[in-house]
Amino acid sequence: MTDKNLVLGGMLYEGKAKQVFTAGDGDLVLIHFKDDATAFNGEKKGQIENKGVINNRLSARFFRYLETEGIPTHFVALINDRDMLCRRVEIIPLEVIVRNIVAGSLAKRTNQAEGTELGEPLVELTCKDDARGDPLVTKEEAIAMGAASTEEIDRIRTLALQVNEKLLPFLLEKKLKLVDFKLEFGRDRDGNLLLADEISPDTCRFWDTETGEKLDKDRFRRDLGGVKEAYIEVWNRIGDFRSSET
Amino acid sequence: MTDKNLVLGGMLYEGKAKQVFTAGDGDLVLIHFKDDATAFNGEKKGQIENKGVINNRLSARFFRYLETEGIPTHFVALINDRDMLCRRVEIIPLEVIVRNIVAGSLAKRTNQAEGTELGEPLVELTCKDDARGDPLVTKEEAIAMGAASTEEIDRIRTLALQVNEKLLPFLLEKKLKLVDFKLEFGRDRDGNLLLADEISPDTCRFWDTETGEKLDKDRFRRDLGGVKEAYIEVWNRIGDFRSSET
Repeated sequence: MTDKNLVLGGMLYEGKAKQVFTAGDGDLVLIHFKDDATAFNGEKKGQIENKGVINNRLSARFFRYLETEGIPTHFVALINDRDMLCRRVEIIPLEVIVRNIVAGSLAKRTNQAEGTELGEPLVELTCKDDARGDPLVTKEEAIAMGAASTEEIDRIRTLALQVNEKLLPFLLEKKLKLVDFKLEFGRDRDGNLLLADEISPDTCRFWDTETGEKLDKDRFRRDLGGVKEAYIEVWNRIGDFRSSET
Repeated sequence: MTDKNLVLGGMLYEGKAKQVFTAGDGDLVLIHFKDDATAFNGEKKGQIENKGVINNRLSARFFRYLETEGIPTHFVALINDRDMLCRRVEIIPLEVIVRNIVAGSLAKRTNQAEGTELGEPLVELTCKDDARGDPLVTKEEAIAMGAASTEEIDRIRTLALQVNEKLLPFLLEKKLKLVDFKLEFGRDRDGNLLLADEISPDTCRFWDTETGEKLDKDRFRRDLGGVKEAYIEVWNRIGDFRSSET
């Protein structure tokens, strides 16, 4: 990392799948993508070979695409296979989930069959709090907790639905059904909301439009096998050659 | 029950704390209040002496008061110590929780201190589903599940907040702080929404305004002792003599 002429500072944060370092003049961060995989709020642990490389490159691809579609993101540049330069933001402690098809925790909570198409996309907020199992909160509760202001939550909801609208046809062209996904947002130094974190098979459910095959972290969560191959398959369908620059 | 000249039919439903029988011409039900107490979705079981009598009479008192304040309820008449005549409704499978102060599951989910005053009351919806632990759902999810229509959910929210506005000063006069409460709603034969179920120390958190003492089912849930006495205390503060009619 040090051969990139990028002044790196200390590690700001280490999460389950990424490390974040201060970079440049302090308004930037370098995000390093690891191969570590966890599920069920850290109860299940493992590694997926080259996941960090694929998620770094895929996230860059998605962020670039979304930027061209008018969604503000933290993405600045790909640095190398596992590192991405981003604007430094204060992460809003909410996970923003958008759903097009019933799966995962929604199926469990509401006893609906996985695969049920939702008439309209649903947006959920959960607290970023592994110890409590990332519990669902209402918009009003998120505000009462001080996680974000009313205006921010409204803007986050609008942006999350826009991301969905932009990703759905983009992925459909690649024969991927976007079942649901998790976003995180942050505030830059001026208080602007930026889409942050990552967009990858770790944070999205992708189903093959023809076979229904799961091509995402559910293969790891549910011990379905072919985990590494699923990530590569998504990369092969989505990756573009522009992003091979390092 | 049979000496009231009320034609009773079969039991429609038996819940944890109540039994419901068809009554009259089929548009009415008789609700029988038991002393059985459960907590944690049925994991903890017990009995609270005369709880059924107190909850029946207290619910009647609250429903009468709310009716005079313009809230439509299922309440028709008190029949005796443990039985209440109500309009028959199709229960909407949602629990509607209104909160003025952080307690219980909200404190757990959001890691806020019990007792934190909320600037504005919060309304939550949960699925009536003990097996799944009455999970929280968003408004949009409740609609997507088919639990209720958008119009019904909006009306339920409005009614729930109105009930809160009416109960807060009523209880404050009795030196009771209304921390939070759970409501259920039903549709009558014409599709009108009516406040249903019960309003009692089983379904509300009441704290003494001066001592902060808990005067509700939390004494049972948390093994605080003085359970029966707390129910009697609430009855002594709220019960009125009009409701001694049988």
